[in-house]
Amino acid sequence: MRVGVLTGGGDCPGLNAVIRGIVRKGVQEYGYEFLGYRDGWRGPLDGDAAPLGIPSVRGILPRGGTVLGSSRTNPFREEDGVRRIKENLAKDEVDALVAIGGEDTLGVAARLSDEYGVKCVGVPKTIDNDLSATDYTFGFDTAVGIATEAIDRLHTTAESHMRVLVVEVMGRHAGWIALHSGLAGGANVILIPEQRFDLDQVCAWVTSRFKASYAPIVVVAEGAMPKDGEAVLKDGSVDSFGHVRLSGVGEWLAKEIEKRTGKEARTTVLGHVQRGGTPSAFDRWLATRFGLHAIEAVWDGDFGSMVALRGTDIVRVPIAEATSRLKTVDPKLYEEVGVFFG
Amino acid sequence: MRVGVLTGGGDCPGLNAVIRGIVRKGVQEYGYEFLGYRDGWRGPLDGDAAPLGIPSVRGILPRGGTVLGSSRTNPFREEDGVRRIKENLAKDEVDALVAIGGEDTLGVAARLSDEYGVKCVGVPKTIDNDLSATDYTFGFDTAVGIATEAIDRLHTTAESHMRVLVVEVMGRHAGWIALHSGLAGGANVILIPEQRFDLDQVCAWVTSRFKASYAPIVVVAEGAMPKDGEAVLKDGSVDSFGHVRLSGVGEWLAKEIEKRTGKEARTTVLGHVQRGGTPSAFDRWLATRFGLHAIEAVWDGDFGSMVALRGTDIVRVPIAEATSRLKTVDPKLYEEVGVFFG
Amino acid sequence: MRVGVLTGGGDCPGLNAVIRGIVRKGVQEYGYEFLGYRDGWRGPLDGDAAPLGIPSVRGILPRGGTVLGSSRTNPFREEDGVRRIKENLAKDEVDALVAIGGEDTLGVAARLSDEYGVKCVGVPKTIDNDLSATDYTFGFDTAVGIATEAIDRLHTTAESHMRVLVVEVMGRHAGWIALHSGLAGGANVILIPEQRFDLDQVCAWVTSRFKASYAPIVVVAEGAMPKDGEAVLKDGSVDSFGHVRLSGVGEWLAKEIEKRTGKEARTTVLGHVQRGGTPSAFDRWLATRFGLHAIEAVWDGDFGSMVALRGTDIVRVPIAEATSRLKTVDPKLYEEVGVFFG
Amino acid sequence: MRVGVLTGGGDCPGLNAVIRGIVRKGVQEYGYEFLGYRDGWRGPLDGDAAPLGIPSVRGILPRGGTVLGSSRTNPFREEDGVRRIKENLAKDEVDALVAIGGEDTLGVAARLSDEYGVKCVGVPKTIDNDLSATDYTFGFDTAVGIATEAIDRLHTTAESHMRVLVVEVMGRHAGWIALHSGLAGGANVILIPEQRFDLDQVCAWVTSRFKASYAPIVVVAEGAMPKDGEAVLKDGSVDSFGHVRLSGVGEWLAKEIEKRTGKEARTTVLGHVQRGGTPSAFDRWLATRFGLHAIEAVWDGDFGSMVALRGTDIVRVPIAEATSRLKTVDPKLYEEVGVFFG
Repeated sequence: MRVGVLTGGGDCPGLNAVIRGIVRKGVQEYGYEFLGYRDGWRGPLDGDAAPLGIPSVRGILPRGGTVLGSSRTNPFREEDGVRRIKENLAKDEVDALVAIGGEDTLGVAARLSDEYGVKCVGVPKTIDNDLSATDYTFGFDTAVGIATEAIDRLHTTAESHMRVLVVEVMGRHAGWIALHSGLAGGANVILIPEQRFDLDQVCAWVTSRFKASYAPIVVVAEGAMPKDGEAVLKDGSVDSFGHVRLSGVGEWLAKEIEKRTGKEARTTVLGHVQRGGTPSAFDRWLATRFGLHAIEAVWDGDFGSMVALRGTDIVRVPIAEATSRLKTVDPKLYEEVGVFFG
Repeated sequence: MRVGVLTGGGDCPGLNAVIRGIVRKGVQEYGYEFLGYRDGWRGPLDGDAAPLGIPSVRGILPRGGTVLGSSRTNPFREEDGVRRIKENLAKDEVDALVAIGGEDTLGVAARLSDEYGVKCVGVPKTIDNDLSATDYTFGFDTAVGIATEAIDRLHTTAESHMRVLVVEVMGRHAGWIALHSGLAGGANVILIPEQRFDLDQVCAWVTSRFKASYAPIVVVAEGAMPKDGEAVLKDGSVDSFGHVRLSGVGEWLAKEIEKRTGKEARTTVLGHVQRGGTPSAFDRWLATRFGLHAIEAVWDGDFGSMVALRGTDIVRVPIAEATSRLKTVDPKLYEEVGVFFG
Repeated sequence: MRVGVLTGGGDCPGLNAVIRGIVRKGVQEYGYEFLGYRDGWRGPLDGDAAPLGIPSVRGILPRGGTVLGSSRTNPFREEDGVRRIKENLAKDEVDALVAIGGEDTLGVAARLSDEYGVKCVGVPKTIDNDLSATDYTFGFDTAVGIATEAIDRLHTTAESHMRVLVVEVMGRHAGWIALHSGLAGGANVILIPEQRFDLDQVCAWVTSRFKASYAPIVVVAEGAMPKDGEAVLKDGSVDSFGHVRLSGVGEWLAKEIEKRTGKEARTTVLGHVQRGGTPSAFDRWLATRFGLHAIEAVWDGDFGSMVALRGTDIVRVPIAEATSRLKTVDPKLYEEVGVFFG
Repeated sequence: MRVGVLTGGGDCPGLNAVIRGIVRKGVQEYGYEFLGYRDGWRGPLDGDAAPLGIPSVRGILPRGGTVLGSSRTNPFREEDGVRRIKENLAKDEVDALVAIGGEDTLGVAARLSDEYGVKCVGVPKTIDNDLSATDYTFGFDTAVGIATEAIDRLHTTAESHMRVLVVEVMGRHAGWIALHSGLAGGANVILIPEQRFDLDQVCAWVTSRFKASYAPIVVVAEGAMPKDGEAVLKDGSVDSFGHVRLSGVGEWLAKEIEKRTGKEARTTVLGHVQRGGTPSAFDRWLATRFGLHAIEAVWDGDFGSMVALRGTDIVRVPIAEATSRLKTVDPKLYEEVGVFFG
């Protein structure tokens, strides 16, 4: 039996740990052979693959990125995409595929599996942690750790100087990174895409903080929007969800706060730093276990399923169902955390 | 209403985050006053306490240790202990207590609550993660992260030199830290207290690793024991579980491996480094939420209960039940991870 | 004898280590008393001070910021500034001052010492490492370390995706942080304020990097400028050196690269994160030794002098001379490093 | 022209950065070819080598260890060693050698260069920083950083519990790592090989620390010895300097302190963790510049010389002279730091 593996979508620390887990267990316990497809769905589409063995996964556990490369290629948008994939899998004598990716990558796996008989098992990947079927996805803990460390560093400046410090973190549609890092970092304001923010309220929190002889730290998710967002936007753009988005919300917010409070404000934009580098121990543990269980699902012939974390257990859920709903921040949780604002 | 707070037992990163969560929510939402008792149960026993307000919890979130101090004092072993505690609580006009601690500290809280009518809410703390009622306890993720980073560093030495590298990590009765950090760090052998190890097997793994031109890394929990442990022990001692324990198992193991394989072996003993310093973002999130929910339990009058993590939810369980059973590594999980040995 | 201590100008990891060194040695070896003035020169100007003893410097060694606060107040721009300072020092019975700060703060110390007979000893502080009299200043190593770690993290993204990654680091007039972190992080292009850059050359380096199947990382100091800077600037402003400056050069550069190469580009702006948080071991060592030697200069009556690092020795130089010349990156050194570009 | 490169002796973070600097500049500026010899002097002795080009040094900058491998092989102790080396260099058409290593490796290079006409340039490597000819060597800053971080973590435990915490760090004959990390970490006692310690004095410092309600942290270099060392030694061994050495001084010291003060003591032994993993930014900068200047020395035909750091400049010194004297801690510097003891 020969199994194909591919990684699609954006970078996420832990991808290599998944691949290593799949290959180590697949080779040693099940005697499988492996083929690594390059750059997500582009690999099987173009027949671009290379053998994956235990030597090729040696030393990759602590490394960010993915040794298989990645892309956002969607075979359903390519001419004759499904046929080409099926032909290449047949030519490569690949019996089953493990697809590691987010909504888009797994959406393809679900359709290929459910509608076209391609034997797929899915492993969820989203650095934003916005997949409803699993408690956590790997990479998220690393991103939160990096953002938290940055916020930690800002505190000493906040103690010594009287500036507003704005930190823009990842999160287009879900504010999990902002919420977790903002709480862990002791931010005074946390703004998430799920709730339009009120600039007057933000300025009130900022001002009250100065009264305690301490400069405020504002964590804002890149997808957060003010209440009257559409009106104030100059270079906002409509995203794939049909929402108008502010480009560079951190910089914009700092300028607005300066204008309204008369306090100097400085911005940190972490950007891709959050999704690179060595994964945290938590993410390596989770990603490795996802890999071990994904190849077990192949062994069990449980195609169309995806591995997921529930508590401390790895379970299986149907891919299609898993990717159909975005997991956003529960208003109750946001309110719970609100006790630390201001 | 006035609430007392105390922290007992060994150091654990995140204790201050719990205290801060309790106080922030208690003061702002419920209008409570707080009294911080010094050094665990010694505080209420001796009437040693100081007011705890929002200013006293400012800036403590990223700091390890506990601002309240800690001890292993057990009032049930002190003359007249219960009476003294009840008198001091009455004198201090303290209506309820939040006790943050491990098996021993919470065991006292359970008895005081169930048998003596002292209104207690518990927050579980064990760096070894060995409490059955909760998916995780704070501090564990930090400890695993520190041990993993140490193992990561050993890999480059392992690549360049042909030495066996032994790392002794915490874990007297449960091998969670060894298992998680050993897996995350890509160790070649992981030895835990739950399963007596076979020195011949260890040496076989070590030797096979050298054949791949790579030096082996052996992670051993401080409580791990060889199969014929009692026989080989020179300075072993009987612990509170009635088990004979090897003192300095890491050093002992390195010498045995040298003797049997003829390969040089070096030991790293991380010791207290694992339980100190700033908590990870994960631990701050968990500890803060434990604090918020513990004070909510006080507000609800849900005494005798303890907060616990289930998936991503904080739930309540009876303290007594929660502390009665040690959570050790499931043999199936150890076997799952065994695919990476050798 | 009573000695005043103050810290002026921008934040810099290591300030607390200097203060601790001064106080520990001053109290224990010389029997001095200390007064800490608040917020740089504002402290002696307003008579705002508090006693500094060994207990007040306990635990501050690993903490960023400054326990004394800071400001950019310049007594020579305040009405009657010098007289007020002399009166307050007399009132406080302060015989000598240790001033820790950059060009501005030390410039004041030099004039007060040389022209007005105020007994001052200086400790140099500049996170940009742009003071000619000393090999290094504390804080710089920490900033370089933080920027390097960020660049390290971007490499895994660069491996997996084909994006240009731009990192904007500190450095208005001197490119030391960009040069050191860019070299240490393995950047493909490093742009510094000392040399106007040619956008065509930058794009050529970027493009050649893609040919090696690897995405380029561009490190740019905040004060770097294109050759035709004045022409392209929209919101540039004239700084205190009379130079027109680009605001947000990182973001601007990313857009220009996108436009010219057709490759997507993303920006990271580290901002104040670089100057906060715990100082590196190197900076703690240097800052502590600066403190020990500064108080020794007071003991020796060597006023008007400043401590400086030469090789591994701490020496003394006249403050006035030390602050008169900016240390910028030597073109030869920049050329030496250029072997890694492209 | 073809140049050989080898790395000898113990592991040291930054070795790969040196190799990369040599190759990048040698290929791009001088058009050299390179041959990498495996495992130090064993490589040219056995004719074990592989071509080194720009692709082979890609991505190695942040990695610890050495891609060339290392050993302690000394050709002067091998039969016919020099002849074999000369023959292999001739066979490989290697015109010059860059040897990166410590006292032993460079001692061989000096003799081969001075007595046998083999064209060698040296790059100094010693994690202990004990080479007199250079201000610093790469790897040292990384080791100090790791030890300091460990000490930092112990402080929170020291605050919460009343235990003596002993940390054993590297340093057989020179106490630089102990001195720098102990000072940077705020240790209360620092013991170095250069000065026999007095157990009574150590216990006096320990005891006085407890009076300040704070547990003491003792940093001890592995080569430190008590005043009456020879008498107390059980398993001491005579080292290559003819000194009797204590094995496991950290563990021994902890037990002695417990015995004499009645206080519990715990030990951390960092071991090889200190010499592994990614080099600090400082070490990458220094190592890269060493590499660039070493290949420049080859270009200049300056054989028999070694690169060294003086202030911020890289200079050249005769290898033979450079390796003849150990750089130990100056008693005055140790005394200067002593103000923080107790």
